Amino acid sequence: MSGRELELAGRLAAQLRVDSIRCSTAAGSGHPTSSLSAADLMAVLLVGHLRYDWDRPGLAANDHLIFSKGHASPLLYAMFRAVGVIGEAELINTYRKFGARLQGHPTPVLPWVDVATGSLGQGLPDAVGVCLAGRYLDRLPYHAWVLCGDGETAEGSIWEALDKASYYRLGNLTAIVDVNRLGQRGPTELEWDMDRYARRVESFGARPLVIDGHNLTGIDRALTEARADPDRPSVILARTVKAKGVPNLEDVNGWHGKALPADMAVRAIAALGGPTDLHTRGALPQPGSPAITPAPGAPITWPSFALGEKVATRSAFGAAVAALAARPDVVVLDGEVGNSTHAEEFGKVAPGRYFEMFIAEQQLVASATGLAVRGYRPFAATFAVFFSRAFDFIRMAGISGVNICLVGSHAGVEIGQDGPSQMALEDIAALRAVHGSVVLYPADATSTVRLVGQMADTDGIAYLRTTRGAYPVIYPAGEAFPVGGCKVHRAGPGDQVALIGAGVTLHECLAAADELADTGIRARVIDLYSVKPLDRDALMEACQVTGSRLVIAEDHYPAGGIGGAVLEALADAGVPALQVAHLAVGDLPGSGTPAELLDAAGISARHIAAAARRLAGQ
Amino acid sequence: MSGRELELAGRLAAQLRVDSIRCSTAAGSGHPTSSLSAADLMAVLLVGHLRYDWDRPGLAANDHLIFSKGHASPLLYAMFRAVGVIGEAELINTYRKFGARLQGHPTPVLPWVDVATGSLGQGLPDAVGVCLAGRYLDRLPYHAWVLCGDGETAEGSIWEALDKASYYRLGNLTAIVDVNRLGQRGPTELEWDMDRYARRVESFGARPLVIDGHNLTGIDRALTEARADPDRPSVILARTVKAKGVPNLEDVNGWHGKALPADMAVRAIAALGGPTDLHTRGALPQPGSPAITPAPGAPITWPSFALGEKVATRSAFGAAVAALAARPDVVVLDGEVGNSTHAEEFGKVAPGRYFEMFIAEQQLVASATGLAVRGYRPFAATFAVFFSRAFDFIRMAGISGVNICLVGSHAGVEIGQDGPSQMALEDIAALRAVHGSVVLYPADATSTVRLVGQMADTDGIAYLRTTRGAYPVIYPAGEAFPVGGCKVHRAGPGDQVALIGAGVTLHECLAAADELADTGIRARVIDLYSVKPLDRDALMEACQVTGSRLVIAEDHYPAGGIGGAVLEALADAGVPALQVAHLAVGDLPGSGTPAELLDAAGISARHIAAAARRLAGQ
Repeated sequence: MSGRELELAGRLAAQLRVDSIRCSTAAGSGHPTSSLSAADLMAVLLVGHLRYDWDRPGLAANDHLIFSKGHASPLLYAMFRAVGVIGEAELINTYRKFGARLQGHPTPVLPWVDVATGSLGQGLPDAVGVCLAGRYLDRLPYHAWVLCGDGETAEGSIWEALDKASYYRLGNLTAIVDVNRLGQRGPTELEWDMDRYARRVESFGARPLVIDGHNLTGIDRALTEARADPDRPSVILARTVKAKGVPNLEDVNGWHGKALPADMAVRAIAALGGPTDLHTRGALPQPGSPAITPAPGAPITWPSFALGEKVATRSAFGAAVAALAARPDVVVLDGEVGNSTHAEEFGKVAPGRYFEMFIAEQQLVASATGLAVRGYRPFAATFAVFFSRAFDFIRMAGISGVNICLVGSHAGVEIGQDGPSQMALEDIAALRAVHGSVVLYPADATSTVRLVGQMADTDGIAYLRTTRGAYPVIYPAGEAFPVGGCKVHRAGPGDQVALIGAGVTLHECLAAADELADTGIRARVIDLYSVKPLDRDALMEACQVTGSRLVIAEDHYPAGGIGGAVLEALADAGVPALQVAHLAVGDLPGSGTPAELLDAAGISARHIAAAARRLAGQ
Repeated sequence: MSGRELELAGRLAAQLRVDSIRCSTAAGSGHPTSSLSAADLMAVLLVGHLRYDWDRPGLAANDHLIFSKGHASPLLYAMFRAVGVIGEAELINTYRKFGARLQGHPTPVLPWVDVATGSLGQGLPDAVGVCLAGRYLDRLPYHAWVLCGDGETAEGSIWEALDKASYYRLGNLTAIVDVNRLGQRGPTELEWDMDRYARRVESFGARPLVIDGHNLTGIDRALTEARADPDRPSVILARTVKAKGVPNLEDVNGWHGKALPADMAVRAIAALGGPTDLHTRGALPQPGSPAITPAPGAPITWPSFALGEKVATRSAFGAAVAALAARPDVVVLDGEVGNSTHAEEFGKVAPGRYFEMFIAEQQLVASATGLAVRGYRPFAATFAVFFSRAFDFIRMAGISGVNICLVGSHAGVEIGQDGPSQMALEDIAALRAVHGSVVLYPADATSTVRLVGQMADTDGIAYLRTTRGAYPVIYPAGEAFPVGGCKVHRAGPGDQVALIGAGVTLHECLAAADELADTGIRARVIDLYSVKPLDRDALMEACQVTGSRLVIAEDHYPAGGIGGAVLEALADAGVPALQVAHLAVGDLPGSGTPAELLDAAGISARHIAAAARRLAGQ
């Protein structure tokens, strides 16, 4: 940067500080001191390094700016004001107000925000996904700049991110760590021990650049060096002072997350030179288009399966997602179990769009989020149970509003011998609760293929639960399985009871219906392959016919799963008094064969039939 | 170790290998190759370093042996056979069988197993909790030895653990990493790059000891050095060969998690010298008793609050847990938000039992698990939403059967300005689903205090959800709030509708009842402070009286929360047809005042009253 630019950055930094104080004091809450420590870093970045067309935030060639320390939103929004995309009035009058887009922590309701942050240790992992897209898919020279807090380096996810960034040689990623020494309740673990930070960063394969975070020339040099390294991610470790620029508040504990009272704000703003109306923008990116672009009309040859053939739904997923490789926007991420989830089938046909995340489920989901930011359609696959490791990331992806597909195999006690640590028995409850989620649990290969196809066009977090074992194909190829629908088997006007299952328990329900038919009880069977959204009308109809006699069987703990989904849907006037037998995994399971464990959990055909007989009064 | 002992260890290693093959081949599944790579390490540990009274697994002075790579259970169980606590028949005939205690991955159904493992990257974090107890509470010289896989070092939680271990100078902790180069589906990230492993370990403050994992003398030396460092955790980085000892299978990809077919097993066992019946034990620990022992009868002076006083339940938690400090087994863990959760009140009165985990929620919960292994009663506190970061750890704690208390503050849209990233809106669904969990959500300070008191004696995972804002105390000091109960306000035989709330929405329900009374509608209000277990009888009675007209209002997303809990409890014959209005947070919230956000979500008093009027036909 030229001397003139550096001088401009200095004035900009003062304005960013002033505006951070102004908006948070006006709001009566927020994190001004955490914004002030990073103001010089962001001023230099904005004037001299960020290549971004502020009028076209959707431009593929734009750099990415992610505030992993989302609580520094006053600083981010002050930057938005400085580049002229929001006005002074919006900044000062609406920050943290009801209905405003300038929320307490940034979310993508703002077009210049890629992902929601505020749960620490997520912005950097998300950026890894953006940079995977940049290097391997878009093949554009954009750079992702991520402002991190020092406190959040205590999150393991930061190290998962740096590990993957170096493994994938993401020279297009720079983390800027604002080492201001103070966390919320006191000093951070490493305080200003820059050497230790640097050793950690270097050992994880990134390039550490230790600087004084208030020296504009040094910042400029570090940002230049960071961008220049083509194959190694950089981490700028900037020693800073919390509340920098406010006399008597600098490096003082006890001021995290507190707006300055009005009188203090007045004095602080005066000390900083008063409000200014500086407007500036940095360079524009070189124009460019992604190397790989969506081709929604791509012809896809879906796999098909013969009726009665025994096929695991995880295997059908593998075949389906491999077929989806014909769509160039589809990307698959593996959590080091691709041979179990069958995600590796995609890797065999589209190795350039298949990324191994190893045993790091947080980064698995974060990479998906980052790839989705760039318009790709990621399928992230691991054992269903291990998405619990990434639950906070899934939750935040819901707030970010990204479209990602999660595929969890080996669900429930059905996995058998491996025991409870490997059994997803809480996943339906957890995933149903996430904002904007879709939860699918097919019983056979045909329905799996159809659902995988729809997932690729579903908004939000689409979760598919697949089964370990092979079960008969029960639906002919080509049958439709709309998300939000269900399949009703053996329905008749004289049905005495409805058996509701999904996945493995659907097969148990069908066997139970056979058994019941032998004893003269007419039972319909509902394949609730779409757990969320759910086909309320079909359930209502079943209630009307059967007098609300429902047996619900699920390979899941009792709370919040398929039983909860059904009951929540029916919790309304218009349904006769429910007589529900809810069969779920009540006790902690151990090892055994799938059949033994399904039976011991009380969710096998004989238990379903017995429950139906009790409801039918026999 | 003497030459004789090393020779013994060599023979033991061969037996451990043979037995690992025998039991997994008999089971038809399991991870023999992952067991064989670590057999030499464990043989030397067992003969010469592990100080453990195998007849008294509950002895406080015992060392701890944790298989963080739980899939190497054949090796662990082979060790159990070698020390004579299980017989050959149990090992060979019951491994992975239904009903057996030798499950696919270790769980504490075995008295020599501290914690369930199998979700990678958890055993080491759990051990940090054990070692915190050893150094700071028990003050006993026991050592925790943790066998880790190389693949699991990709989990960020491993680095959270080493970070905290070094921060707390846990010289009593040694991780033994079995660097066998191969994961499930192929090579690990770092393969045999021992230098990179060592640099990472060292940068995180632990002592790296790089060895050949098949050289018994080198192993012995490293284990000796590891135990000798009083203030620094050690990480033995053992370069090993997967399937070591089996010709043609050593270091061969594609054999992870596969039992040897019978014919291969016969040849492998022969090559290893055939089955043997070696029995050996190492040294016993020095006798010793914990410095801090439970004193259940300790007199506790509970805080009390005046009716009508405005007190945040998070604040009441702080006062209550500080009172609990009179019980010497109570320990509190903070996730760097102790001034927000009010956990810091405990730290003020019992600093020696207050541990700062910084912003590392996985380690926060894992530390609690480890402390519970040693008999302490940990309360781990952070924002409710950030327990989602540790959901897999909470799930595994449920399988471990430990008794831990989790306290999550700042729940729901009620937090206001900070926005959705900080709002727990999925926590009740997720926590309800966990095996053996208790979910509590008090509305006022009095009930909070009473519930905190019971949590300290509750089995399993006890979760308390607290509220950010201050609301009036509505219950007199001393009133009882049994777990599994509820409080029914304003009940009468002519009630037309029941309003069900918990936490902040209870206050909204009370206000709604006032409003309804003004218009002649009689509404009872149910404070469902115990969401799991739940007072089904009180709900049934409310249904009988009101014709099952229920308004349920919760500051949570719609799926799986309080609404789900109520409906699941009532899903049975005997309840008149439900007419439920379920008010929950349907849309993604933003920032705003608590009142604005509660109203916008449709869970404020006026919405509750309107829903009640609709149900009552007015």
